[in-house]
Amino acid sequence: MKTETSKSANEAQIRARLDEWAKAVCAKDVEGVISNYGPDILLFDLAPPLQYQGTNTCRGNWAEWFATFQGPVDYQISELRIISSIDVASCHSLNRIHGTRTGGEHTDVWVRATLGLVKSDGKWTIRHEHYSVPFYMEPPYKASLDLKP
Amino acid sequence: MKTETSKSANEAQIRARLDEWAKAVCAKDVEGVISNYGPDILLFDLAPPLQYQGTNTCRGNWAEWFATFQGPVDYQISELRIISSIDVASCHSLNRIHGTRTGGEHTDVWVRATLGLVKSDGKWTIRHEHYSVPFYMEPPYKASLDLKP
Repeated sequence: MKTETSKSANEAQIRARLDEWAKAVCAKDVEGVISNYGPDILLFDLAPPLQYQGTNTCRGNWAEWFATFQGPVDYQISELRIISSIDVASCHSLNRIHGTRTGGEHTDVWVRATLGLVKSDGKWTIRHEHYSVPFYMEPPYKASLDLKP
Repeated sequence: MKTETSKSANEAQIRARLDEWAKAVCAKDVEGVISNYGPDILLFDLAPPLQYQGTNTCRGNWAEWFATFQGPVDYQISELRIISSIDVASCHSLNRIHGTRTGGEHTDVWVRATLGLVKSDGKWTIRHEHYSVPFYMEPPYKASLDLKP
């Protein structure tokens, strides 16, 4: 019973953490996003390179991405599944990114998100993030930016 | 001390599980791959759709992919990091897929891999897999198939 309670309490804490993270993304608040990361964060992002390591690299990456949007970003986490233990969790979801780019084009894309989180000193932090879209398996191997759940 | 021992024992078990999984991929052994999955496996794969759910769907997906290769697939797991607790783990790595397609073309691509694992009845199983490459942010938004770690 205690284990069940801890599990649901942990999941509630993780959901709160991800809500906070998503609100920071919507507000284009770089420091708000970064405050959810552990220092050893390793990010597999939508854009190259293969990986980004450490909070400083991730900070620059988020700032650059936010700068490509006019006004706020509409960022929604959907179909979230949390696999959690006492102090480690793996989460995945389908996330919608919706907004207007500085060049005026409209972006509305669904991406896959997988996170690895660790609880330390009572606080969950994100240690790993993986964002992607699949790609079409025929030349020119375009990213599948038109998929919906 | 006990926790440390369990942690390293768990990580050794996970490494063994992933080695087994990779050997099955190299041998194009569909059932060998599937035997590492939990029944609620959810896969974010390189090819569309956004997600594949359940062992039967994943079985078909692996069989189709294996059929695109002549002979064995050279599949290597590199830069593996395991974030583990007693019974939940999040792992990520850069994996190299290397081989000759049935049409004769040569494939040599590095992909990002993130897994979610659960230990139940003393056995680690994979509950979530996420494979991807990033994509170039200029039209035609091609998958970044030429990146090396």
